[in-house]
Amino acid sequence: MQGNRIALSRAITFVESTRSDHQELAHTILDSCLETGRQSLRIGITGPPGSGKSTLIETLCLEILKNPNNRIAVLTIDPSSERSGGSILGDKARMEKLAGSKEVFIRPSPSSGYLGGTSPKTHQAILLCEAAGYNVIIVETVGVGQSEIFIDSMVDYILLLVLPGSGDELQGIKRGIMEIADGIAITKVDEATEKNVSLSQAACESALKLLPKKHTVWTPHVTLTSAITGRGIDAVWNNILEFAEKLRESGTFEKNRKKQLHQLFCAQVDLQLKKSFYSHPETKSLFAKTAAAVEENSMSPFTGAKKLVEKVIRSPR
Amino acid sequence: MQGNRIALSRAITFVESTRSDHQELAHTILDSCLETGRQSLRIGITGPPGSGKSTLIETLCLEILKNPNNRIAVLTIDPSSERSGGSILGDKARMEKLAGSKEVFIRPSPSSGYLGGTSPKTHQAILLCEAAGYNVIIVETVGVGQSEIFIDSMVDYILLLVLPGSGDELQGIKRGIMEIADGIAITKVDEATEKNVSLSQAACESALKLLPKKHTVWTPHVTLTSAITGRGIDAVWNNILEFAEKLRESGTFEKNRKKQLHQLFCAQVDLQLKKSFYSHPETKSLFAKTAAAVEENSMSPFTGAKKLVEKVIRSPR
Repeated sequence: MQGNRIALSRAITFVESTRSDHQELAHTILDSCLETGRQSLRIGITGPPGSGKSTLIETLCLEILKNPNNRIAVLTIDPSSERSGGSILGDKARMEKLAGSKEVFIRPSPSSGYLGGTSPKTHQAILLCEAAGYNVIIVETVGVGQSEIFIDSMVDYILLLVLPGSGDELQGIKRGIMEIADGIAITKVDEATEKNVSLSQAACESALKLLPKKHTVWTPHVTLTSAITGRGIDAVWNNILEFAEKLRESGTFEKNRKKQLHQLFCAQVDLQLKKSFYSHPETKSLFAKTAAAVEENSMSPFTGAKKLVEKVIRSPR
Repeated sequence: MQGNRIALSRAITFVESTRSDHQELAHTILDSCLETGRQSLRIGITGPPGSGKSTLIETLCLEILKNPNNRIAVLTIDPSSERSGGSILGDKARMEKLAGSKEVFIRPSPSSGYLGGTSPKTHQAILLCEAAGYNVIIVETVGVGQSEIFIDSMVDYILLLVLPGSGDELQGIKRGIMEIADGIAITKVDEATEKNVSLSQAACESALKLLPKKHTVWTPHVTLTSAITGRGIDAVWNNILEFAEKLRESGTFEKNRKKQLHQLFCAQVDLQLKKSFYSHPETKSLFAKTAAAVEENSMSPFTGAKKLVEKVIRSPR
């Protein structure tokens, strides 16, 4: 909480670890981070591969840092990196303008089996970064599969990046992701023709009009951006600030945060339940025996499961 | 077990029900169905929409019934029907040649949230059909998403249906489904040109050669079929019989069945654990209170989850 980056890194490592002593340590740390009282802003940035997430984040960070009170934590998650192996390093290299900055903390987060890369562990990493004094948290994720559900459960504002095309570039973007976007940035407009940029903008705007509103007090905006020329980057940041103000005024901001904590709690209950059950001495001593009886057809899978669970769950008083 | 179709239908309805008294009744019935001692053959039939699953199943059933000892249960599952609403009825209508047969029991199964439609409930329905004296069980599923994992956990033989095309029809079929196929039937060859049929056959055969073997004792075969002319239907059935013989001889058949029971057991343990936990009086009385404390930031989600689970899990002795 004194802003020690090495301590923060270590804490996130404990969160990410699958070792149960590390997990306990992580939760002890997180417990002591409650009510840090800081007003943070959590931004999710998503978009298809190649839509320029890393470069936009880098330029956006430089814009955010124009206010000297801001300190930024960037959690980059790229599930494709598990396969290609190179992307996280690539991201780091691309974000080299930020690497030297003391006001920016960059951390690639493990996606560990969660589609799209945002997991309860990412949520915990956000809490740690906030406790360490970072008031702007940026979570980068690839908009695939069910990631939209996960990212929506831990950030305040979601920015969707779209490459300019001939109008049908939205086909590659799932409806579910459009629905949770609080803003859209059309990226790399310097590389596209004026006509294609206009077509993309029109397509995004009409798509947003067709979808149900995420927040009654907010209408998502489409911004034309270029990380190279800097076009639109200030507009993106101002839009995020305006969003935070509007939602705070209406009470939606706080309500949303509570809902997210509730979801995190539910996920933790499920995790803890499984952990406590499978590490329980009764389970350990009976599981193999019961499974064998089931395989030999001398006990049904249902009776076996019931008997096993009954041994571990406390009888109702 | 006396072969009463109405009793069987009711038992499957109990299995499918989400009511917990129905579930208990279903498990009591299933418990008494253990060790029915019959040698059954479970066949999974999968393929993209439009590949002719229903018509092939109908013609295959007529072929199987040439042996008067055979009684067939067909569990058809079509997740798309949830949306379109008409497909299950469509299937039933298409299978009208079987509808009057006393030797065939046809049942559309609910997909209830499981991708591709095969769920632990389908596995239970299979067990019930076997207890009722059906020795050939056919499970129809659409080859999408993760259905291949589910279907592979409950049948002995998987037949993949492929429409003849110009050789790239395999692109729409996921590698995971090719990998679990024990046989491929190219369907509707009467409607395609000789050239396209040959191209498809060659594509399937070379794809099978590239993939790792599922069973060391078995090499999947590609059969050309037409439900209209009847071409290849006997070959498909003979191939399934040959498969069963080879796998029984090598012990693989029995080993596979044991593995499937083990998986069903594990799935049941997880289900039972959640059910016992969330219906526990302690959980019911404490969940809302703990969640509220978490939302108010007076307790962390981790400590909250731990405290709640500790109340319900028996302390290790």
